[in-house]
Amino acid sequence: MKEGGFAGDGTRRPIGRVAIVGAGQVGTMIGGALRAADASWGVDEVGLFDVDPSVAAESLARGGGDRILTAADEALAADAVVLAIPVFEIEAWLAENGGSLPPGALVIDTGGTKGPIVRAMARHVPPAVHAVGGHPMAGTEGPGPAAARPDLLAGATFVLTPARDDPQALAAGRALAAATGARAVEMDAGLHDRTVARISHLPHLVAFALASVAGALAAEDPDAVRALLGGGYRGATRLAAGDPAMIGQFCSANANELEAAVAELRSALDALSEAAARGSEPLRAALAEGRAAQALVLAEAG
Amino acid sequence: MKEGGFAGDGTRRPIGRVAIVGAGQVGTMIGGALRAADASWGVDEVGLFDVDPSVAAESLARGGGDRILTAADEALAADAVVLAIPVFEIEAWLAENGGSLPPGALVIDTGGTKGPIVRAMARHVPPAVHAVGGHPMAGTEGPGPAAARPDLLAGATFVLTPARDDPQALAAGRALAAATGARAVEMDAGLHDRTVARISHLPHLVAFALASVAGALAAEDPDAVRALLGGGYRGATRLAAGDPAMIGQFCSANANELEAAVAELRSALDALSEAAARGSEPLRAALAEGRAAQALVLAEAG
Repeated sequence: MKEGGFAGDGTRRPIGRVAIVGAGQVGTMIGGALRAADASWGVDEVGLFDVDPSVAAESLARGGGDRILTAADEALAADAVVLAIPVFEIEAWLAENGGSLPPGALVIDTGGTKGPIVRAMARHVPPAVHAVGGHPMAGTEGPGPAAARPDLLAGATFVLTPARDDPQALAAGRALAAATGARAVEMDAGLHDRTVARISHLPHLVAFALASVAGALAAEDPDAVRALLGGGYRGATRLAAGDPAMIGQFCSANANELEAAVAELRSALDALSEAAARGSEPLRAALAEGRAAQALVLAEAG
Repeated sequence: MKEGGFAGDGTRRPIGRVAIVGAGQVGTMIGGALRAADASWGVDEVGLFDVDPSVAAESLARGGGDRILTAADEALAADAVVLAIPVFEIEAWLAENGGSLPPGALVIDTGGTKGPIVRAMARHVPPAVHAVGGHPMAGTEGPGPAAARPDLLAGATFVLTPARDDPQALAAGRALAAATGARAVEMDAGLHDRTVARISHLPHLVAFALASVAGALAAEDPDAVRALLGGGYRGATRLAAGDPAMIGQFCSANANELEAAVAELRSALDALSEAAARGSEPLRAALAEGRAAQALVLAEAG
């Protein structure tokens, strides 16, 4: 992995006219950050397209862009197209429009699963167009322009996953990420998906599964749940408050890695459950290994 | 379940001399709260016993009691004995000392698993002694007197699990709980253990299991974990920062219920993983059920 926000050759191409496709929370966050970018990045304008015109209008009102693009085709005239729509819609957009992007343009996305997207880019976007996968590690849990927080991009990691050997695509992606205030980090799409399956998608599924188990109990013995529920449960299941549609999109797009991650979790849980049956000292030893793993994870995260 | 802090017959027996057995975080919390109780509760003194004299001395210095009990036998002379030691040690204490408790005394514990304890009470404590299981739903994650926060008992739930048909035991347990500032809630020990297995012990095991899965990845690809780790993971695994010895004690004491809870979680996770493989819409629908379950749980908790 390489980090940085500038082209390796020291030159910097102006970002030019940007089209945000999907003016929800993420699109509005990126559009707003690009509008606030230093003039040296050369952002000429930010256009907003959304299949729901009221969403585009709300994004515009909240500063997500300079004007609304009323037809999907208008996005194809931009210098940089940012696909801020769910993963499956990104794949469909690329299949339908990738061949119509003009030579020299940048196309980048913001999806939480990268393998299917970089494969669709390689397949549907002509070689003269610069395509790169993107995943900004910033945002809120709420949907829509009202939940957008452009300031969250400042200093955040913006992962770039190459779609093919194209240094100019990476350079343009880095410039766009840096213009939003984020820190670009290049990563293989497969490694990205393997990692998020385990440290993001799996914790999401687990939170909903814990809620299902507790919910069955709450339906049966509400008084006992009321008396015994503590802060530990609330923290462990906070992700179950998220939007099922959005979580359903990124988890199902990463279903293969997620299935492997679920199998790993089952093994770890079974080992702990068996240790519990053997006694407190075997369980203490097994938990101590888990705590050491956690210390390693958090040390890496700084 | 019944709630309240007073004997049903309107009379109130003074609490008298209290012996705290185990002067760690929980013992110091309860001792400190009882020393601050209104005089009408009739707490004459709080004695502290710990197998580690330095722990008893630290608890005394932090206001956990009025004096140190230097021999285990001294606790047997008290009007109320509070066993604030790990579950397996409570069982051992009852087997060794239960028969020596004086008629009319109260013996109560603070363990996080209640079935084994009320069975040990019924077996080892003479009928003329008032025995009741207790579980204060308050405390901190840290071990030792330094981590004690007596103020956390104010308004907290203090679960009482009957060991046998003994209204005086319940009344005395309610008075002790109320004197600490807590709200007594009577509950069957089996229901308590079934519930905490699912809303407390299972989330603990899951946090450590998630940490193990992520830790294996962090050992292999630290850069990817560093780039992609977010707040969702941190919240979902916060319980993995807890003390393995303490968690090992209460989880292994509840191993049977915990095994059943793990099986329920596996079913829920498998269903979500299969839905993810079928596509985003089936997964969205399955996640929406989990979110509805979570809403039910949190609504019960108020």
